Amino acid sequence: MRTTTGWQADGPAAALRRTPLKRRDLRPDDLAIRIDYCGVCHSDLHALRDHDSAAGPLVPGHEFTGVVTETGPAVAGFAAGDRVAVGNIVDSCGECPMCRAGQENFCHAFPTLTYGGTDRRDGSTTLGGFSREYVVRDRFAYPLPPGLDPAAAAPLLCAGVTVWEPLHALGVGPGSRVAVAGLGGLGHLAVKMAVALGATTSVISRSPGKADDARRLGAHAFVLSTDPIHLARARDGFDVVIDTISTPHDLGPYLRLVALDGTLSHLGHLGPVTVETMDLLVGRKKLSSAGSGGRPATAAMLDFCAANGITAEIELLPSARVHEALDRLRRNDVRYRFVLDMSDLDGAAPPEPHA
Amino acid sequence: MRTTTGWQADGPAAALRRTPLKRRDLRPDDLAIRIDYCGVCHSDLHALRDHDSAAGPLVPGHEFTGVVTETGPAVAGFAAGDRVAVGNIVDSCGECPMCRAGQENFCHAFPTLTYGGTDRRDGSTTLGGFSREYVVRDRFAYPLPPGLDPAAAAPLLCAGVTVWEPLHALGVGPGSRVAVAGLGGLGHLAVKMAVALGATTSVISRSPGKADDARRLGAHAFVLSTDPIHLARARDGFDVVIDTISTPHDLGPYLRLVALDGTLSHLGHLGPVTVETMDLLVGRKKLSSAGSGGRPATAAMLDFCAANGITAEIELLPSARVHEALDRLRRNDVRYRFVLDMSDLDGAAPPEPHA
Repeated sequence: MRTTTGWQADGPAAALRRTPLKRRDLRPDDLAIRIDYCGVCHSDLHALRDHDSAAGPLVPGHEFTGVVTETGPAVAGFAAGDRVAVGNIVDSCGECPMCRAGQENFCHAFPTLTYGGTDRRDGSTTLGGFSREYVVRDRFAYPLPPGLDPAAAAPLLCAGVTVWEPLHALGVGPGSRVAVAGLGGLGHLAVKMAVALGATTSVISRSPGKADDARRLGAHAFVLSTDPIHLARARDGFDVVIDTISTPHDLGPYLRLVALDGTLSHLGHLGPVTVETMDLLVGRKKLSSAGSGGRPATAAMLDFCAANGITAEIELLPSARVHEALDRLRRNDVRYRFVLDMSDLDGAAPPEPHA
Repeated sequence: MRTTTGWQADGPAAALRRTPLKRRDLRPDDLAIRIDYCGVCHSDLHALRDHDSAAGPLVPGHEFTGVVTETGPAVAGFAAGDRVAVGNIVDSCGECPMCRAGQENFCHAFPTLTYGGTDRRDGSTTLGGFSREYVVRDRFAYPLPPGLDPAAAAPLLCAGVTVWEPLHALGVGPGSRVAVAGLGGLGHLAVKMAVALGATTSVISRSPGKADDARRLGAHAFVLSTDPIHLARARDGFDVVIDTISTPHDLGPYLRLVALDGTLSHLGHLGPVTVETMDLLVGRKKLSSAGSGGRPATAAMLDFCAANGITAEIELLPSARVHEALDRLRRNDVRYRFVLDMSDLDGAAPPEPHA
């Protein structure tokens, strides 16, 4: 086994503590990666809240970038020194129709998650990217294209591909009318990508203060969702509405903004959602849902971002300030994504502060 | 005013009784139609059950065929003697974006329904097609193409266009994999149309006895929805699932049969529906809903049916047997649509049977 250092929770709602972590010895198709930057995702908050200590310790983090330090003997596509990125999936069955279609995220046997997943070969629980090293099967590492800042690119691996998938699957391009509901970690990337795809792009938000940011990110219009006049004007106006609002909410008002034959795509794992049939029926609208992406989409998204200079707007903190990042994320106090700099995990731990 | 004869309910759950009905004098753009055949739709049952007598009498019927008997002076497209058909919409605002897009069924000001609607010019309540004559604005009558049997074509005007709309909007054609859940009035027409469109077409039913009918209608395969092995084999197998089941039911099992990027279109007015986000997310599936159609789709559907020899499978009854038709429809005892022959409304009413 290899040893690295990371941030681990030992029980439900427990604070993360800096601790040595084991990583597996390299299999023939494994890479060892020195993690430089790891984004902080809403689902990390959920995982920490719901963590069952009977399942073993939890190390969050599933959108990271770094440099290859070592490769197994069967690895052909990577060499030590390569810049790489890893997202929220690190393995899949490879044989089901979804895997064969390049949608490993929908693997019928369930994909192996980057943390809290079960390794398909040794049955161990995966530990995530809030650490200095990760060992990953080569198929689930992506070359980080030149020109992308590795810190600001880290969130592309989860937030980025999550918004890319519906934009791409729904055929967004020049002439498309796209609205992004919610301007947060996901939303701000959806705006950048939709604009770069050539769509006329609007932001829907209940915060008037987001209007300036929306314009700065390239959006062409702003819909204040608390203003009935704004909503009436925007009715049936968008071919695609990407709903990035992370808390349960009524989808009706957003469906009513979808144009004839258009789609409301809501992101994330909202659990059961209820819609009024008439909100779908009138205008022949569609409801879809998206979360993460497969290998081909992830690679295509990274290429697209590199070609268009798209990365996340981030606040970069040393990993030792992980609790501050989580606290502020819990309050939605971030524009627009926290990224942890893992270099402070090298060397000895600083002395514990007095409790 | 003009006078005709029809079948009218005077209160909630009241029996229909044969009675004289008033029709308006022809406006410049009106047609008078002698109704020969009118289909019996599930929504007629709902309307009768929910009828509020404070709203005036109810005459059901919104899928009928007949012959033009008289035209207003501004009518250019029809002449006395023409075979025509009318569906569930008889007017709309004509000005909103949906009307301008030819989707009068989604009119922002709400379309005028063929019965129980409010006439846009005189405010009267519309009375439906269970009668011998109807007066309709010319825009909402359709020439009945030659070759279509007028009795078996009547159900095309509601059931037919309701299944045509999603098949057409979802681009079903050669190579498409379509499944039709529920083999009733809507479902059997969906099968005929999907087959004629070139799709590989399956029927999903909980009744093994429907398998023979499915094949006779042209379906290529049959999925028994009570058999887990059938369902597992069909998983992710259909680009389009048309769900015609008219009672509230769990959409999850049907969503799991939809292929990557495919759509489950459920028909009718189910009220609120609840879906698990994961059933949509895994496979990037879409949920949509459909009901009736606009003028261009209705005309295109009739042309398509004429070109492909498609009409409904019907049981034709004299209109005096309307109660028998409603009772059997309530028990789903019909293959596959009742059509009433209105010619028995000519002349004097037969003597009342002893109660």
